[in-house]
Amino acid sequence: MNNKDILLDRIKQNSDRVEAALSAYSSGEDEDIGLIFRAQRYSLLGGGKRIRPFIVNEVCASLGGDEKASMPLACAIEMIHTYSLIHDDLPCMDDDDMRRGKPSNHIEFGYANALLAGDALLTKAFATAVGTDMLDAGQKAEAVRLLADAAGERGMIGGQIMDLAGEEQSYEFSKLLRLHSLKTGALIVCSARLGCIAAGYGTDSVESQKLSVYAAKIGLAFQVVDDVLDVTADEQQLGKSVRSDADNNKTTFLSFYTVDEAKEYARTLTNQAIEALEGLQNCDTLAELARYLLERTN
Amino acid sequence: MNNKDILLDRIKQNSDRVEAALSAYSSGEDEDIGLIFRAQRYSLLGGGKRIRPFIVNEVCASLGGDEKASMPLACAIEMIHTYSLIHDDLPCMDDDDMRRGKPSNHIEFGYANALLAGDALLTKAFATAVGTDMLDAGQKAEAVRLLADAAGERGMIGGQIMDLAGEEQSYEFSKLLRLHSLKTGALIVCSARLGCIAAGYGTDSVESQKLSVYAAKIGLAFQVVDDVLDVTADEQQLGKSVRSDADNNKTTFLSFYTVDEAKEYARTLTNQAIEALEGLQNCDTLAELARYLLERTN
Repeated sequence: MNNKDILLDRIKQNSDRVEAALSAYSSGEDEDIGLIFRAQRYSLLGGGKRIRPFIVNEVCASLGGDEKASMPLACAIEMIHTYSLIHDDLPCMDDDDMRRGKPSNHIEFGYANALLAGDALLTKAFATAVGTDMLDAGQKAEAVRLLADAAGERGMIGGQIMDLAGEEQSYEFSKLLRLHSLKTGALIVCSARLGCIAAGYGTDSVESQKLSVYAAKIGLAFQVVDDVLDVTADEQQLGKSVRSDADNNKTTFLSFYTVDEAKEYARTLTNQAIEALEGLQNCDTLAELARYLLERTN
Repeated sequence: MNNKDILLDRIKQNSDRVEAALSAYSSGEDEDIGLIFRAQRYSLLGGGKRIRPFIVNEVCASLGGDEKASMPLACAIEMIHTYSLIHDDLPCMDDDDMRRGKPSNHIEFGYANALLAGDALLTKAFATAVGTDMLDAGQKAEAVRLLADAAGERGMIGGQIMDLAGEEQSYEFSKLLRLHSLKTGALIVCSARLGCIAAGYGTDSVESQKLSVYAAKIGLAFQVVDDVLDVTADEQQLGKSVRSDADNNKTTFLSFYTVDEAKEYARTLTNQAIEALEGLQNCDTLAELARYLLERTN
């Protein structure tokens, strides 16, 4: 197999293990509240490449850690990612009826249950981070701090606030960078740091710092590629409405760059991500992931 | 001063200290995301008796603990309570335009910002629980576990799911008890347990178990009194719409009891709460609190 096929195989294997773990975390036989489990599972399961959990588990593995320790944190970050998608799709936010090629959570379960399913997943992320015997109390407390910071107002929610405000104003380039570093970058950087925590490397360690730079760069490249795909891909490829950002008059990287320039910018960021891994062991898969995310078409 | 005046004075003093701590936790000078701080502070500050934080701090004090250790946990539980009110008021949930005598968060800041303000407060509760030097890592991890369990699907959110389903079906008495033990009881029991944690008493300790019974009983009495006030108080006293539950055809304690019977039931629960404190030291204030909540008129 070539490097890309090896990567895709590892992503698929990881995705299957993450799916099984997420399913166990969201199971419940309880007729009074069965709806909250069904609504969670609808959005949490059956979906995609699980890039954030992959980063958590892959970083942990690259540092010699045990996946039994990283998997709860991998699931926690995926729960937070999923909650954010459910709330983002609500009519008061992006008002998207479709997600990953099927009706959005609130279309399937109603607005109130979708709201609560999102709330429940956010809450469960923290329960999951502290609910394992594979991490000591110090690792758990640090994981909670990282998750809350990345998901909170100085992370993802701050990015969403900037995103909403961006519907009524255009941003200069530095603000667009900040928006994305908060809205999507924070969770991706958190994924790398959680992998370090699970392997026993604190957030102050050289390893965690290098991997944080790697993650920040691929996170930004991911968003640049997203903006490019938003105008070049067709709806079927993307599994969601295309040109939604352009139609909303939001500032994107294509407000500053041509498509070719944006692609070149994403390449530069990807190279910087790979350079950040220098001096670390066992990072071939992470480097390949950076290249793969650059070349994705959906 | 008589016992009630002593209690009211302690509640007021505590409320002032909690207010100052909450204000510090929700301050931020950052023009890009300033709105999320304003929307949080609008609902988080300026409000009421702070019964849940009072229980956290008072339980900790009764066990000889330091308020510097309990205050972060007291604030965390109030953040979760406040987030639940913001999301509950949203049009897709209870659709309440008024809260505590002023426009609801979504009326003041718009639906999207209110949604995010709630999300941010829930997230911040966990950041706050682990963001103090006054608790060790074991206490922090246990506090996060308690908070997430009480706020999650087998706690408050489960109660909300049952509450929503109750608009389309009537509940038997045992289900109504379960609904309230989840929807409001879980956070109140959590408050008592967090106070224990802050004072160094684990959730398995006799102290924590007695105080959990106390909290469960006053939580249920609180809800029974709420149902009574919902039909007997006027809007000005209550600071919110009256008869909203009756108008929604929801099952309440008055579906099973007359007003007088419900008052007697609340008295019995209050006595049971006070009895649960037997054998504990320094619990006069907690006992007085139980009596006070029984006699409240708003």
